[in-house]
Amino acid sequence: MPALPTLNIVPFISVENMMDLVLNIGIETFLDELAAYIEADFRRWEVFDKVPRIASHSREGVIELMPTSDGTLYGFKYVNGHPKNTRTGRQTVTAFGVLSDVDSGYPLLISEMTILTALRTAATSAMAAKYLAPENANCMAIIGNGAQSEFQAIAFKALLGIRRLRLYDIDPNATKRCAKNLRNLGFEIQACRSSEEAVEGAHVITTATADKQCATILTDNMVGPGVHINAVGGDCPGKTELHRDILLRSDIFVEYPPQTRIEGEIQQMPADHPVTELWQVIAGLAPGRKNGAQVTLFDSVGFAIEDFSALRYVRDKLSGTNLYENLDLLADPDEPRDLFGMLLRRKALTATSRKPA
Amino acid sequence: MPALPTLNIVPFISVENMMDLVLNIGIETFLDELAAYIEADFRRWEVFDKVPRIASHSREGVIELMPTSDGTLYGFKYVNGHPKNTRTGRQTVTAFGVLSDVDSGYPLLISEMTILTALRTAATSAMAAKYLAPENANCMAIIGNGAQSEFQAIAFKALLGIRRLRLYDIDPNATKRCAKNLRNLGFEIQACRSSEEAVEGAHVITTATADKQCATILTDNMVGPGVHINAVGGDCPGKTELHRDILLRSDIFVEYPPQTRIEGEIQQMPADHPVTELWQVIAGLAPGRKNGAQVTLFDSVGFAIEDFSALRYVRDKLSGTNLYENLDLLADPDEPRDLFGMLLRRKALTATSRKPA
Repeated sequence: MPALPTLNIVPFISVENMMDLVLNIGIETFLDELAAYIEADFRRWEVFDKVPRIASHSREGVIELMPTSDGTLYGFKYVNGHPKNTRTGRQTVTAFGVLSDVDSGYPLLISEMTILTALRTAATSAMAAKYLAPENANCMAIIGNGAQSEFQAIAFKALLGIRRLRLYDIDPNATKRCAKNLRNLGFEIQACRSSEEAVEGAHVITTATADKQCATILTDNMVGPGVHINAVGGDCPGKTELHRDILLRSDIFVEYPPQTRIEGEIQQMPADHPVTELWQVIAGLAPGRKNGAQVTLFDSVGFAIEDFSALRYVRDKLSGTNLYENLDLLADPDEPRDLFGMLLRRKALTATSRKPA
Repeated sequence: MPALPTLNIVPFISVENMMDLVLNIGIETFLDELAAYIEADFRRWEVFDKVPRIASHSREGVIELMPTSDGTLYGFKYVNGHPKNTRTGRQTVTAFGVLSDVDSGYPLLISEMTILTALRTAATSAMAAKYLAPENANCMAIIGNGAQSEFQAIAFKALLGIRRLRLYDIDPNATKRCAKNLRNLGFEIQACRSSEEAVEGAHVITTATADKQCATILTDNMVGPGVHINAVGGDCPGKTELHRDILLRSDIFVEYPPQTRIEGEIQQMPADHPVTELWQVIAGLAPGRKNGAQVTLFDSVGFAIEDFSALRYVRDKLSGTNLYENLDLLADPDEPRDLFGMLLRRKALTATSRKPA
């Protein structure tokens, strides 16, 4: 991290600078390194302050705050989810986040997180799949070819060596666009006409659909033995993608049970339905995949620690770059108790030159 | 509000621009108008989503998120409280906040809130005192002459006509600075050598000390009949300013009981100790001050709705000014589902010109 010029300044990563950071590092390398940060933080899961995200629901969507802290750093993300936004040219999901110093409470970094959330979601999925997907998995179905789909594909290529993709979306244009975006990146891509066709021969099934409703993207007969399901789309109350029967014969892995039981696929199940916390697998306290016939399910909803890891990662990568702006965010009077005096001094300083209201 | 150039841009009010906005409007007018916004939002209290602030405590302090929504707008504030910060030249309290559109989830404004919090705290105190202070109050004691003290003085002058100030702080330099900052603003100021001296003849007693501990700034014998106590400093678990006996003979008014019972002076009392919610007084559903002998206490801890009002106010005042910067905060691809494509287009566009990492 560059030395801060003064205490009042907080570095800000804009969307443009985030894109350049990702492109300079390389998307695959970025996802690979980011997954390592997430994995490291999952391994020390117990040191974190954890709360389910604080959601403000409205008719059209949700606005959420996702805070966490490891005792040294504090991070939070602001994120919205508004499926109808695409009708007005807006993103379904936008986000930004802040990383702070626990010792002083001062923010250290403000960053766009729309792009970063897409990257961390994919990195988390692929990181989980390292422990849960069948050995030598090389073919993945992606059902739902929206904004998350390409990130998932590249993360699974980087971390698992997935080379074959089977794409399906109810909107054929979404599939077309996804396939086009991924061409020349080393995939063998099959556009499919149905979910049933997409899952044929797939070792991993990623579901990433966006409607805010209970849907059945996958039914039980579509899931063969040994498959790993990476369920990304179901991530709020009333939004699921999988038929209940699939959950009954899967070993289910989750991020943070108090949140997943409300938001994930398992909201369809009784509150005591057995699940394994992913961090325990990573910390060696619980088994991941046990055999080649087992159906594993990562019921991903996205947890604050993943955003914390992502902010931590980009902060480390920012060092020595100029990919940030300095925001005059924090009042910094010469005498810290003299906030009012700062106003008076500003008044004296700018009595003639101040910008008119 | 100025029309936004594009969907990805969010206006940002820096500390410097906030100072200029306050100075252009005039501090007294700003506090007066801000108090009216807060009062209007307290009057429609029931429409708001309310949760106690989400606090992350550490040894040295606390970092908090304070969200709320009226169904049309959503706001939240990030605020820290670190008493030892002054030792390293930092503020005890710094803050920033965001106002968003509930319908799309898109942020509409990011603002510094260190200065704005000081202003809204003072405006809320003075607004409450309009309903609670004795008639024709013109003399206020301020015990604790730190960063909040001048703002309290000016807000009480603007809203109640307080003209005489009696200042005391354990640090005489704090009192000196406060008195100096307030000279020429129309006050008659008495610097006092003790709390006992400060409260002599005061109609309103403001306590605004900062230590994170249970202290006894006021004892029972210091509070005469008819006085209004504006207790601003006790605002987190383990931090109080008043002796319990004062609470026993005061009528206590609070912002949001679930939060105040944890953070306010009433954390010293049983969980069912009677209090009146301030919004009910403002909405005409409960009496404020009933007679000239009654001791009233505003047990202020600061609530999210006050920050929401403050963000709403500055957003309205920003119209037609140039007192903001445009932040490229939100990813805004041409095709909203094509987030990855935006990265690819950036890559193509900047293949040769991109800033090096």
